[in-house]
Amino acid sequence: MIRAGILGATGYAGQQLAWLLFRHPHVKIHFLSSYNHTDVPFSQIYCQYEGFIQDLCIDIQSIEEHLSNIDILFIALPHGKAFPITEKALAYGVKVVDLGADFRLKSTEIYKAWYGLDHECSNLLSSAVYGLPEIHRIQISQAQLIANPGCYPTASILALAPLLKHRLIDPSSVIIDAKSGVSGAGRSANIATLFTECNESIKAYGVAGHRHTPEIEQELSLIYGENLHVSFTPHLVPMNRGILAACYGKLLHKLTQEELYEIYQFFYKDEYFIRIVENLPETRWVRGSNFCDIGLRVDGRTGRVIVISAIDNLMKGAASQAVQNMNLLFGIREIEGLELLAMIP
Amino acid sequence: MIRAGILGATGYAGQQLAWLLFRHPHVKIHFLSSYNHTDVPFSQIYCQYEGFIQDLCIDIQSIEEHLSNIDILFIALPHGKAFPITEKALAYGVKVVDLGADFRLKSTEIYKAWYGLDHECSNLLSSAVYGLPEIHRIQISQAQLIANPGCYPTASILALAPLLKHRLIDPSSVIIDAKSGVSGAGRSANIATLFTECNESIKAYGVAGHRHTPEIEQELSLIYGENLHVSFTPHLVPMNRGILAACYGKLLHKLTQEELYEIYQFFYKDEYFIRIVENLPETRWVRGSNFCDIGLRVDGRTGRVIVISAIDNLMKGAASQAVQNMNLLFGIREIEGLELLAMIP
Amino acid sequence: MIRAGILGATGYAGQQLAWLLFRHPHVKIHFLSSYNHTDVPFSQIYCQYEGFIQDLCIDIQSIEEHLSNIDILFIALPHGKAFPITEKALAYGVKVVDLGADFRLKSTEIYKAWYGLDHECSNLLSSAVYGLPEIHRIQISQAQLIANPGCYPTASILALAPLLKHRLIDPSSVIIDAKSGVSGAGRSANIATLFTECNESIKAYGVAGHRHTPEIEQELSLIYGENLHVSFTPHLVPMNRGILAACYGKLLHKLTQEELYEIYQFFYKDEYFIRIVENLPETRWVRGSNFCDIGLRVDGRTGRVIVISAIDNLMKGAASQAVQNMNLLFGIREIEGLELLAMIP
Amino acid sequence: MIRAGILGATGYAGQQLAWLLFRHPHVKIHFLSSYNHTDVPFSQIYCQYEGFIQDLCIDIQSIEEHLSNIDILFIALPHGKAFPITEKALAYGVKVVDLGADFRLKSTEIYKAWYGLDHECSNLLSSAVYGLPEIHRIQISQAQLIANPGCYPTASILALAPLLKHRLIDPSSVIIDAKSGVSGAGRSANIATLFTECNESIKAYGVAGHRHTPEIEQELSLIYGENLHVSFTPHLVPMNRGILAACYGKLLHKLTQEELYEIYQFFYKDEYFIRIVENLPETRWVRGSNFCDIGLRVDGRTGRVIVISAIDNLMKGAASQAVQNMNLLFGIREIEGLELLAMIP
Repeated sequence: MIRAGILGATGYAGQQLAWLLFRHPHVKIHFLSSYNHTDVPFSQIYCQYEGFIQDLCIDIQSIEEHLSNIDILFIALPHGKAFPITEKALAYGVKVVDLGADFRLKSTEIYKAWYGLDHECSNLLSSAVYGLPEIHRIQISQAQLIANPGCYPTASILALAPLLKHRLIDPSSVIIDAKSGVSGAGRSANIATLFTECNESIKAYGVAGHRHTPEIEQELSLIYGENLHVSFTPHLVPMNRGILAACYGKLLHKLTQEELYEIYQFFYKDEYFIRIVENLPETRWVRGSNFCDIGLRVDGRTGRVIVISAIDNLMKGAASQAVQNMNLLFGIREIEGLELLAMIP
Repeated sequence: MIRAGILGATGYAGQQLAWLLFRHPHVKIHFLSSYNHTDVPFSQIYCQYEGFIQDLCIDIQSIEEHLSNIDILFIALPHGKAFPITEKALAYGVKVVDLGADFRLKSTEIYKAWYGLDHECSNLLSSAVYGLPEIHRIQISQAQLIANPGCYPTASILALAPLLKHRLIDPSSVIIDAKSGVSGAGRSANIATLFTECNESIKAYGVAGHRHTPEIEQELSLIYGENLHVSFTPHLVPMNRGILAACYGKLLHKLTQEELYEIYQFFYKDEYFIRIVENLPETRWVRGSNFCDIGLRVDGRTGRVIVISAIDNLMKGAASQAVQNMNLLFGIREIEGLELLAMIP
Repeated sequence: MIRAGILGATGYAGQQLAWLLFRHPHVKIHFLSSYNHTDVPFSQIYCQYEGFIQDLCIDIQSIEEHLSNIDILFIALPHGKAFPITEKALAYGVKVVDLGADFRLKSTEIYKAWYGLDHECSNLLSSAVYGLPEIHRIQISQAQLIANPGCYPTASILALAPLLKHRLIDPSSVIIDAKSGVSGAGRSANIATLFTECNESIKAYGVAGHRHTPEIEQELSLIYGENLHVSFTPHLVPMNRGILAACYGKLLHKLTQEELYEIYQFFYKDEYFIRIVENLPETRWVRGSNFCDIGLRVDGRTGRVIVISAIDNLMKGAASQAVQNMNLLFGIREIEGLELLAMIP
Repeated sequence: MIRAGILGATGYAGQQLAWLLFRHPHVKIHFLSSYNHTDVPFSQIYCQYEGFIQDLCIDIQSIEEHLSNIDILFIALPHGKAFPITEKALAYGVKVVDLGADFRLKSTEIYKAWYGLDHECSNLLSSAVYGLPEIHRIQISQAQLIANPGCYPTASILALAPLLKHRLIDPSSVIIDAKSGVSGAGRSANIATLFTECNESIKAYGVAGHRHTPEIEQELSLIYGENLHVSFTPHLVPMNRGILAACYGKLLHKLTQEELYEIYQFFYKDEYFIRIVENLPETRWVRGSNFCDIGLRVDGRTGRVIVISAIDNLMKGAASQAVQNMNLLFGIREIEGLELLAMIP
């Protein structure tokens, strides 16, 4: 059994991770840790665990003493909080999956520019692997430290990778217009995410300045082979879960929709979690699962391709992707514990 | 492997059943059948099954020829539609779980009075068992034909059974004020259940005349040992899933809340799927699970007890309860395939 | 022109009041005041006022100097906060409408028992009038200080008044099962009212202990002529606005539904804002209006009457009722500024 | 008083129009007409009108006899249904505002290509005026027949007009990614718009093929002075009302955000209903109003401008824009009956 610890278990991503690890056949949760709810039974904060996960959430300060008893540490904390504990955990030989942003960007300058913080562990960046298995599977399986991708980047990179890998579109033409459920904003007391402030409305936010932009660009540049910049616009949608990304690109050569479908099907032919779908994706079909559904449309009138991808932001966009990475790290079957289909309605 | 067929697989309850049976370790779905979507792949109606359940939905007329190849038939059709096929299936030795209302009421007069139809299979009523395992477990395990309870009755009966069994309340004082998500209304084209008609509003419906009333009364009368009548008021709430029932009764003797909790905990002490909770239940904590959460409050000022129960109407209120019944029918572990916790948020 | 000030203008009720007063033909808003958003333009907190109400929200401490320039002060603050300012305002000859709970209960003991605070202005209680115009119209029109009713009490009292006035039901049988939208919880940062915590769920809260209980009992006792106690259960529903109250009572004498409808129609025959409706009320039909819709059902089987009432909690349950009271206080046409119909969907 | 008739009064747009005309000081509703609800009181379909608009909905066939008694006819029918009645009404000297698509496109070929129907009144197209007052005010005021714009085109054209008029962006770079509430799909029984099918999900639809595309292109081409093509992607969002359009364009010259704001403020300086806002627009701030809020962001990294516009699809996107057009047609103050601010929350 893999012994796991979760740092930040009472946030939505951390809790989703606990849900997944609890039912994972090869994992034993060793501790749940929380900033805000120390010494409270987990089942009192999330009552669905009543009778199942009744452990007290331990203090984040006290987790160091537990490091020698775990094999993997999941960190689900706000950015800037993962540095010291990651170093310590690695020193104990514990593998680390950071669901936050602290090890995603390879450049400390870009990290500082977008997050406003100095990077405290630049020495770890070269060995940290960006945990998008469909793109970096082999490196992940050999890593000690995984930077679990952001939710928007996961949906965006998977949607655009085939187009850029095959240089089918003008890289300067890429626009990503993405929409997220409210759980992406986390579980902290905040007027802006009250029911009454989000319900019955939609808004864009962070236009031309969202922190997931450099992460998307880093990975798409790697795939393309040259540096590129994208326009990325996130929106807040009145629903609990889900990300839908509409990705636009100018085709460099004429291409039919059928040809495009073949390219995508081939590109992802071995990927269990990527479904190239004929109908346009809807977030409900992937809710609660690790799937990324992708649909394609060629607009002959404008010479553009529109790729729509859908994920569950807390699953493929956070917790279930972290489990997928864990499975790779420990040489388990990649889909173990992740054979989940959306529950409808 | 138990070979199962589903009649009415494209309704919400039928589909939820397919979801459960697909992942059940001892079941193989032999056919899915539908009135409205014959010869369409199931995954085209419910796209979360893309890559998983791609079978064509067969014609309801043609299922007779499949009866010799299945062990159990689940019927998820509107009331009045289960009669002939149930007789045929039983004749083939197939066990039947009817998720509709056709075999729930023991009295054909009451059936006619509330459903406006003649009962076509009165001969089967004596052997049909009301499939609420927490109340009728032994009879279920020996039955051929199960009348799977309605969603409101499940929540109501489980909430009130201990009070009536122990004759703690005046039976004439029972009021059940229940609230349901919109999936209870089914998946048919209907102006009243359009998003724009249900969202941002709540209403009561069927006041003093809802068809689940006689079903609740039949079962509570059995438990109490005498005929009783209840007031039952259902409401429609703008959410997909969930039933919350607030049940009121006048205490016959003074009783503290603590004593009441002990009575309920003892009454349900062996029940995996009943959780007596300290906090008041919320439907989200049981969403997607087979649990019924029950909370209790004694109002000393008025001498009343208020019991609040929460279930998922499509699960414990329909499909997962049907699976629980199937497990009993075939002597499998009762919780097999049902170890599900709510996914939050 | 009536010069008005609003204390607590950035809460949902205060803001709704600003909305109503801004378009009222006989009112000029003299100041908006806020605890939390001092010196911020009102239109920056509530952007629908962009170009219309751009005034800075003034400090609550500084409003004393404005008292000589206003005719009416609306107080929309948490309970316990209205005492000193009410005394000062009255001393200036300013009429006061308190939308909070500080002057609703006539008994200081009951106030202390339910709100946990000493009442600091017991001297004002005898002259304070409970501002439910359909019940206390004449007293309101002659008052200086109005205790604007709570949202649940408004819906409950209007639903039950005819039954109790005419002694048609057993007063000990009254149960009120009420459901509210999330705006009732106010606009403060709070995990429990985050979108992701309220959406897709329903719960009861404050069972057998909600502070609106004594308020309902006080007024119903007055109407009935003797002290009575009721069971009151509020619920939280995933919608922005609206209260639906299902009120149950045991009929003392046999009564047809038609007779009951006649009694209600006669009782409220001169009331513009009370609509006795044949269909059961839904909160959407009164959203954004000052109406209270009431529907009636007699359950012959149990001898009970079920009265369902619907209001908008921020309107008839708070702000528009406050305007109705203001109109009465100043001898204006009672419906002035309140001729609003729900906008659907 | 202007005597008005509404054809299709029981759809969402027609009903919203009835709401607006009922409270308009210069209008008297002469008849409401409906395909599906003939001889039913309007207040029975939309119960908020109980006590106010109790008229029977008349048969669409019988409206011809009423044409001599009205001054203006509003048509809120599906496309293809407006042709014969428009001709007749104009023959009677009745002004016509068609809220449908039948007179928006100047080219009958384009109409046929996108709507699949022959245009039956090509003779009327030259005199029909596209009813976007901010763009065509003078022609509207002199017209007999107004083609009221679609909801998406209203949001899109108003967002992009200044950029294209001043030739600030490359016209081939224009992408419009728009999001709509469910009321845009109308009030007809349809599985796809059931609560349970729309709630908790978002999807794109009609990608590269939505019928509003040629309408947007026609008007933007007129403004730009040359034919242009745009990419337009609509999405369905789980909310009742509102459209948010994110419009992308490549800047031809470097331009700061401040300069852009000045250009927009100047372009719309006399427009009451256009608000150029600093914060990014949210649909809730314009809900129930005739406003179009517009926010601007320049993305220096990619050389793009992102314009976000928000309207209420049933108001500025349909009914209140129709009233604005009516006011112009009859020489009334343009904002008469439209001084409405969003009600929050």
